[in-house]
This record gives sequence, structure tokens and C-alpha cells, in this order.
Amino acid sequence: MADAFPPDRILLGPGPSDVHPAVLESLGRPLLGHLDPAFLPVLDEVCDHLRTVFRTANAATLPISGTGSAGLEACIVNLVEPGDSVVVGVNGVFGGRLAEVARRAGAQVHTVEREWGRIIEPEAFVEAVQAHDAKVAAIVHAETSTGVHQPVAEIGAELADTDTLFVLDTVTSLAGVEVDVDGWSVDACYSGTQKCLSVPPGLSPVTFSEKAVAALKGRSTPVQSWYLDLSLILAYVDGDGGRTYHHTAPISMLYALHRGLELVLDEGLEARWARHARVGAMLHEGLAELGLPLLAQEGHRLPQLTTVGLPEGVDEAALRRRLLDEHGIEVGGGLGKFAGSAWRIGLMGHSASERNVRQVLAAIGDLLD
Amino acid sequence: MADAFPPDRILLGPGPSDVHPAVLESLGRPLLGHLDPAFLPVLDEVCDHLRTVFRTANAATLPISGTGSAGLEACIVNLVEPGDSVVVGVNGVFGGRLAEVARRAGAQVHTVEREWGRIIEPEAFVEAVQAHDAKVAAIVHAETSTGVHQPVAEIGAELADTDTLFVLDTVTSLAGVEVDVDGWSVDACYSGTQKCLSVPPGLSPVTFSEKAVAALKGRSTPVQSWYLDLSLILAYVDGDGGRTYHHTAPISMLYALHRGLELVLDEGLEARWARHARVGAMLHEGLAELGLPLLAQEGHRLPQLTTVGLPEGVDEAALRRRLLDEHGIEVGGGLGKFAGSAWRIGLMGHSASERNVRQVLAAIGDLLD
Repeated sequence: MADAFPPDRILLGPGPSDVHPAVLESLGRPLLGHLDPAFLPVLDEVCDHLRTVFRTANAATLPISGTGSAGLEACIVNLVEPGDSVVVGVNGVFGGRLAEVARRAGAQVHTVEREWGRIIEPEAFVEAVQAHDAKVAAIVHAETSTGVHQPVAEIGAELADTDTLFVLDTVTSLAGVEVDVDGWSVDACYSGTQKCLSVPPGLSPVTFSEKAVAALKGRSTPVQSWYLDLSLILAYVDGDGGRTYHHTAPISMLYALHRGLELVLDEGLEARWARHARVGAMLHEGLAELGLPLLAQEGHRLPQLTTVGLPEGVDEAALRRRLLDEHGIEVGGGLGKFAGSAWRIGLMGHSASERNVRQVLAAIGDLLD
Repeated sequence: MADAFPPDRILLGPGPSDVHPAVLESLGRPLLGHLDPAFLPVLDEVCDHLRTVFRTANAATLPISGTGSAGLEACIVNLVEPGDSVVVGVNGVFGGRLAEVARRAGAQVHTVEREWGRIIEPEAFVEAVQAHDAKVAAIVHAETSTGVHQPVAEIGAELADTDTLFVLDTVTSLAGVEVDVDGWSVDACYSGTQKCLSVPPGLSPVTFSEKAVAALKGRSTPVQSWYLDLSLILAYVDGDGGRTYHHTAPISMLYALHRGLELVLDEGLEARWARHARVGAMLHEGLAELGLPLLAQEGHRLPQLTTVGLPEGVDEAALRRRLLDEHGIEVGGGLGKFAGSAWRIGLMGHSASERNVRQVLAAIGDLLD
């Protein structure tokens, strides 16, 4: 690996986001064993900090040793048994992924589909959950493929006193916009480290409510994944009176998550949400001034992930490459129906600054000139 | 995270091993996006280096985004369909884990069991494979729970021209003792980064032969895990003419693996095996001089992982804690039938030095005095 690697970048894509130097410094510290008495407090504090960030008192709150998609799969395979009815909201890539994972877990999957860029109305979603007597109802809070900010509090309130388990994808929302696991009666929630937490990709914070843990304990079939079996993982992470080895915890990444969560809590959750809201609004205004359309439904736009249409006839990939090569700025291409015609601009965590907004707007203006 | 964290340690347990400062330095470099044209050569080189280390020409050679156990599960769930006959060798924890993962994938599992600390005779294993007409035959090359070095070349030779897929666990063997995936006709092989490769835990190198990839393509059911579905992962890792996003690759860990593999290849595989053999023999002699019994079968002892019995009446956990607190040396406790009465001493990768052998022998002599 050359000394000059990597080239300078500003990461304004759909993740990973830029990582604070303090987090990078913690990554590079010498290792400890995963059962070292000096390491276990780090793990405990990571779980405590995650409870604060998720706004939950759930005992079963921990980082899964994989990326956000592993956390998604962990939430589904621990709660779904073959034949279970599962309702999934699908209005982008990540809702589709939830449905696919549930199918592979043997679920009877019923989707509530909406056009990309539109929300799923909470009442329509709840109606489908009731109509299909769903054991699990899963929806994406912040659709990274569209930039839509899905309303979920109403869904949680409706499902709270039912037998349905409410699963929420907060990969792109956690620490960027309000997430309130207990307040919204969410039963299983997963996120990723590389978006608004600004920790490198590789871990997936998850949290399971008591209702979800009871469902897990009441299963009649084993969890299909040994690696993601929450009851086995908890014996290590939450082992009162002794930690049972499950797998070798990713020590360095846990150092980084620990440091990254400290930075989040030092800033304060509300202040962090406000910062994302402020710079997101600044970006949205600036793009409008450039005459570029925002593709997510008005009133439901995420500040930390913006889908923006490009002028007709523009070669999207070539222009994006120029943004990278000439300005050192990474943004994401559109996915699915937005492929080839749109960009996804992330302002997540450490990347969410006014300086970055000014810089990307100036660069886009320059490139389209 | 305090500036003085972590305390000084020499990691001589069953993994993680000590990480070279150059690898730690690479971990702390700024991030790139997983589709950045400056990042993709890093990923390509990681895969190339892994081919060299695995001694294979397999196109399907890549790091799975999880620890060694995720690699194990990836090998099983991609090759096993419900009802398939699978034969697993079980003479320690990790053989047992293979069997459990195969059962959860719906396999009809037949185990070939031997006492902990003994090998499984290759001919007995092959006989069982034939008797059960196994689609998959899986065995552990270096049993981390017992220190046994399993002979596997003969098994591969016998299964090479059959329909059986030969799966090999090289978590603790890769880059510590000879591994020859192509020479031994191994069809699916997984390892971990935190043992003899001396890269932090969090990734699992895997390789699949053409025969294994053909079996994967010929499946009649979807792979139960979306996260570990090799055909989806390969569309990103090996995407000739375009990389399809699957999940966000763990960038920082891939930097570290890249640097760690460079160090392995700079040393040379044969030289590295010889170093492990030399320091392992030195440890074995020293332990014998202290009057402590080696628990793995003579002639089949791993140099990089040694199980050693403690004198009767010794409080194993308390003594191990003193080794850590007073000498700053981590070793592992025994697992399973060796719990409470034995230690596991690792000499892996960067930890495999004569200096460390002298230090741990002196410390053990001191503590037992």
C-alpha cells in the first residue's frame, strides 16, 4: 500500500461518510483479546452508548459483526420462522432487500408497494399488517435509494399492543434524524456504522425489545443462521457472571465504534439532528437554485440523503467521475428507476457540514456550466 | 477512550494475534467509497494475494464481510440444500460448529467423531463420506480447541474425482502451516484474518473451486442467507465490466488485510511456515522441560496453537489472570473437555517469535514456581 494512498476525498455519497480523525486514531490502536478484562468495558460501553443513540432501554442492544445488511438479516432470521406472515413496505432498494431476506427465511411475504420517491402512508401499512395477520411488519425509516423520510411513529403506536413485531431499518437515519425505538414501540431495529455515525463500515448496531426477545425464545425452530443467532451472541455480549465465546469479536472496529459513539454523545443527539437538518435544507435550496429537481416527496425529504435529478442528456456516470477526479468529491449514482438520471448526495455524520454543502454546490454548478 | 488505552499485551491466545504496526497504520487511513476507482484495485489485490496464500487459481476467492465463523457459514449455506447428506469430522469445538451450521442449513449431518486431541484418520473419514454418499464433506485443518494438525491431503486426493465437495476449515492454519487448496483438491475453504495472518478480526477469506461454483449455480433452492450469498457477492468483488453493489464493503478492514497480506508475501509462505514450525517446537520443548503435558496427539501437533495441561490443583483461571496482569501475556483457557485444566498458547503470525516463546516460558515457570 503506497504511502500516498488514499487520494483526498470528501465522501458525500450514500455511505461510507467521512470519519473523524479521532475515530481513525482509535482504529489503529493495538489489539486486545475479545475476553480481555480490559476490553470488556469497551464492549459494555458500546452497548450502553447504542442504547442512548437508539433511545431504548432494551437489554438486547449490541453491534452485529457484519455490515448493515447483516443487521437486517439478523433482525429477520431471529424473528421469522418458516411459514410466518411478514408484511414489508417496499418503495426502494432496501425495502426490496427486506422482503427478499424474509422470503429466504421461509416467510409468507406480503409487500406494500409505493412508487420510488413516495412514502408509504402509515395507515395503509397498518391495514396491510392487520389484513395479513402479520407476525412481523418491517419498513425502512430512511430509504437510501430514494431519500424518503418515512413516517413511522404512527405505525409503532398502532402495532404496540398487538402480537405483531415491528422491525425498523434505521441504517441511514440513526444519529442523523430522530430515532426513538422505545417511544415508537419498535421491536427490532438495525443500523450501520458508516452513515450518520461516521464510523467505518463493518458493524451493524441492533436492538431487540423484550417482546422480540420473548418471540425469539418461543421459537419452535432453530434460527437458520448460527452466526447471527441472537441468543448465542447475547451469551457473549451480555454474559452476566461469565462471557461465553461465540465468535472472535472485531476488536478494532469496536474501538472505532466506541470512539465514534463518544463523539455523537459529546455533540448531543438533538444538536446532531439539528445540524443534519440545517445543512440538508441548505443543500436542497442550493440544488433548487441550480434548477435541479429533488426526487423525494416534498415534506418527506431526508436532510442526510438527497436524490436529485440531472438535466436531460447529461452522462451521469461521466459527470460523477469528473466530480471525483477534478473536485475530489464522491456522490452516489441513482439506483433502480433513478439509475442513469440522478445522483444521491449524502451529508452524513462528520460529512454533514456547511463547508461541504458549499463545496459540492460550487462543483456541481461548475460541472453543469 | 482514554489515551493510555489499551494496556500493553502480548497476544499468545487462540486469536487475535498481535498485529504489525504497519497494519495498524493502514487501518487508520482515511476512507474511500467502496465503488471508488482508487479503492477497487485494493480489493482486487486482496483477492490476488489471497489466491497466493491459499495456493489456488480459483476465481471465486475473496474476503467475506464477517469473522471466520461467517466464512464457515458462507461455505456451508452456499453448497448445502435442505436434505443434502453432509459428513463432518468432529474432534473439537470447530468441527462441532461445522455440524451445527450444516444442520441449520437443513442438511442430513453424519459426524465422524474422535476424542479431543486425536486426529481423524483420513481413510475413516473418506469411508464415512462414501457410506453416506455425501454431497459435502467438511473437516477442520487446525482445531483451535485442541491444537491438532489434521492430515487432509489424502482426503482431498480421494474425493477429487467424486461428486463430493470437500470443505476445509483453515481458520488457524492459513499462513501458519502449509495450506494447498488446489494441490489438495479443496472445493471450499475459509479462514480468519486474526490468526496467522495477523490482521484484526472481522473478515473471513474464502475460496471456492469451479466444482463448488458449479454446484452453487446448479442449486434448486435459493441460498438461505442473502448476506452470504456468494453469487451476489461475486457480482461486486469480481464484476468484470461493472461492479454491482451488494453491501458496503468494510473499507478499513480491507486496507488492513491488504497490508497484512503484503507482509505475508514479503516474508514468503515457506519462510513463514518454517518460522511457525521453529518457534512452535521451541515452545513444545520448553513446556516439556517444565513438566507440562502436551494434549494433542504426538506427530500431529500444530506449532501455532498448543494445548498444554496444567498441574493438578491449579486454579486455571486465576493463574491465567496473573499471567495477564503481572506479565501482560494473554493465553487462552481450555474449551470443552479441556476447560479448567489446560491452556491454549498461540504463536501466530506476528506473535510467533522466539522472544515471545522465551517470555511466556519464563512467565509460566515463574507462576508455577
